[in-house]
Amino acid sequence: MTLYEEVKMLCDNAAAAATSLALASTENKNEALLKIADAIKNDADKIMAANAADLENADKNGVPATMLDRLKLTEARIDAICASIRDIAALDDPIGKGEEWTRPSGLTIRRVRVPLGVVGIIYEARPNVTVDSAVLCLKTGNAVVLRGGKEAINTNMAVVDTIKSALDDCGLDPHCVELITNTERESANVLMTMRGSIDVLIPRGGKGLIKSVTENATVPVIETGAGNCHLYIDDSADIDMAVKIAVNAKCSRPSVCNAIETVLVHASVAAKFLPAFAKAMSEYSVEIRGCAKTCVLLPEAKEATDEDYYTEYNDFIVAVRVVDTISDAIVHINKHSTAHSEAIVTSNGENAERFQKEVNSAAVYVNASTRFTDGGEFGFGAEIGISTQKLHVRGPMGLSALTTEKYLINGNGSVR
Amino acid sequence: MTLYEEVKMLCDNAAAAATSLALASTENKNEALLKIADAIKNDADKIMAANAADLENADKNGVPATMLDRLKLTEARIDAICASIRDIAALDDPIGKGEEWTRPSGLTIRRVRVPLGVVGIIYEARPNVTVDSAVLCLKTGNAVVLRGGKEAINTNMAVVDTIKSALDDCGLDPHCVELITNTERESANVLMTMRGSIDVLIPRGGKGLIKSVTENATVPVIETGAGNCHLYIDDSADIDMAVKIAVNAKCSRPSVCNAIETVLVHASVAAKFLPAFAKAMSEYSVEIRGCAKTCVLLPEAKEATDEDYYTEYNDFIVAVRVVDTISDAIVHINKHSTAHSEAIVTSNGENAERFQKEVNSAAVYVNASTRFTDGGEFGFGAEIGISTQKLHVRGPMGLSALTTEKYLINGNGSVR
Repeated sequence: MTLYEEVKMLCDNAAAAATSLALASTENKNEALLKIADAIKNDADKIMAANAADLENADKNGVPATMLDRLKLTEARIDAICASIRDIAALDDPIGKGEEWTRPSGLTIRRVRVPLGVVGIIYEARPNVTVDSAVLCLKTGNAVVLRGGKEAINTNMAVVDTIKSALDDCGLDPHCVELITNTERESANVLMTMRGSIDVLIPRGGKGLIKSVTENATVPVIETGAGNCHLYIDDSADIDMAVKIAVNAKCSRPSVCNAIETVLVHASVAAKFLPAFAKAMSEYSVEIRGCAKTCVLLPEAKEATDEDYYTEYNDFIVAVRVVDTISDAIVHINKHSTAHSEAIVTSNGENAERFQKEVNSAAVYVNASTRFTDGGEFGFGAEIGISTQKLHVRGPMGLSALTTEKYLINGNGSVR
Repeated sequence: MTLYEEVKMLCDNAAAAATSLALASTENKNEALLKIADAIKNDADKIMAANAADLENADKNGVPATMLDRLKLTEARIDAICASIRDIAALDDPIGKGEEWTRPSGLTIRRVRVPLGVVGIIYEARPNVTVDSAVLCLKTGNAVVLRGGKEAINTNMAVVDTIKSALDDCGLDPHCVELITNTERESANVLMTMRGSIDVLIPRGGKGLIKSVTENATVPVIETGAGNCHLYIDDSADIDMAVKIAVNAKCSRPSVCNAIETVLVHASVAAKFLPAFAKAMSEYSVEIRGCAKTCVLLPEAKEATDEDYYTEYNDFIVAVRVVDTISDAIVHINKHSTAHSEAIVTSNGENAERFQKEVNSAAVYVNASTRFTDGGEFGFGAEIGISTQKLHVRGPMGLSALTTEKYLINGNGSVR
């Protein structure tokens, strides 16, 4: 079997399974979710043994420590995964929800939420994504084809085995969750072309993956996770609040997409804000790359290039630019941002409103950290990623992002 | 200027205009719409002269009569276009609508509808699409880049000139509506790659156009209009009703996407339904292409190939297949359909429900004609096409299909 045939078979199996899964009751789906949680807990030793093999290979291959940490499963992490599955089981099922109206033609029209069908997910080395993705898709009646990174392949195979057994126990088709075990780059490329077999592809990963998907995919895509986020300190900002938010947004978890990469500061408060900001950043050993004005005020700063303002560092590095007006800040953001999350610190209500109106991003904050852009924090219970596109869904993607709508129309011999 | 530079300049002009248009009030946008209706009425002579030139060229180039009819503007058609603009002005503006909630973190989250930004439309020879598209986009705060067919180029240039003057009169940027005057195929291809300048591309046209767009576009696309629609006659169907619906769905306007192409009939009623159906079809000179069983019952029918069942004829041709069970009908539809609109005629409530649940199309009818799949008939006031994809919007696309959402979050120094 060629790689193409292998991927196609998995997608077609998933598509066939999706047809029956779409008809499963909420009770049946929730039962399967709880069974999966139990099974993962029961199989913890087997899964951790597979994970140990992955960790050993990764270490041999010189995978960096931050990635090893993402890859690693512990008893506590497995418990957290199982708790998350139970949380998702407890959420409302969006499938079948909708509204109904009657038209002058006599037709009754119902618009109801239905599953998308088959969801493809391409991701990297975090095994919890395997479980989260499978469970969110199952909850919404979707089959899923997973293509995880090579670093986690043994863990993923063990986890998917466990999930399939649990599905079988509940009378659901194990093909509802398929894993592509070939982890060469080509297997992702093939998955991107499975038009007709998969309904949507969600890439979860770095810039290179997102770019490759948008350039090569012939299946519909939901882009996620590119986060070049900004914090703008307005001339009316409370400086203490500004420093506190900057520290949280940059330093609490720099590797995630809702962390900030650039701080813009109004010229009239730069001399007051920047030294306090630099002092706080130095406690986290953050490297500052600033514009010429910044470098005058902060001699320890490196000079920023234009490239810096387009860069998502995902690291303890921050770009800084002094701007003359709020307009300049908005223009800078709309030019350089990936349209994920931006924030203003201000005590001027008009500027707050203007910033929220004119900044063209999924989440726009006033006097709050960009770190809140998250399905849980927004009240959606769970998320399958954060959309940075405008179509279908924007921002944190909860269960409803995995559904589409369908019109059911009833007449009585009605013709037009 | 190269073609690429020309298209890029128009898209960038539109993107700049979109920024200010997004902030325009509902009153300002409606004022512009009414001004455009007045201006088109005032410029009717100029527009019809341009249209006459297009008709003359098209006639010389051997354009078929049905297309000439679509292209032709008359005083009455211009009045209808102006009436439609006034109808759209009277619709609710979705922009700014939304909901608000507060989180345990103390954050207030508002989710509001905002414009997509710049909408690209690729279409063929109907000048009313030029006006409808421009007006629906303006109403929702979107700039639009139009790329119409070469047959209508003089008409489109005249109409867009008139629209731009009206925008200018209302203090809105005339670049909100841009027309690509180069109508070579290459100009459409270039538009498909304007990632970063246009936010969504809506192709309105035949199979070839849709295929080219899904294969070549790097910008997000909403697919519209492919309509291989089915009518299934259940064993419990009222035969008179079945014939009435078949005639309406096939013959009332065969060239449109919500007309049916294939009739499936349960074997137990085929001998009763098919002769009555064939008689009714013969009154419209409809050619019947049937399966082997159909051809036995209707000696006048041609034999259908498998290809027939995948074909959107858009003409007075219909494929027929006798099926043994409702399951076979559902499987046939889910395999061959473009997932636009399907209908069942039945007096069996369980079968009706099953058909609506299991048929995987945007609109699924019970005892009604597929011809109702239309923004106006659904109560949306207007439509910019009928989506045949599952992401973003499905079925008739009203004003809300031209919007996205944005989260506005307010805190008080909130950190996570």
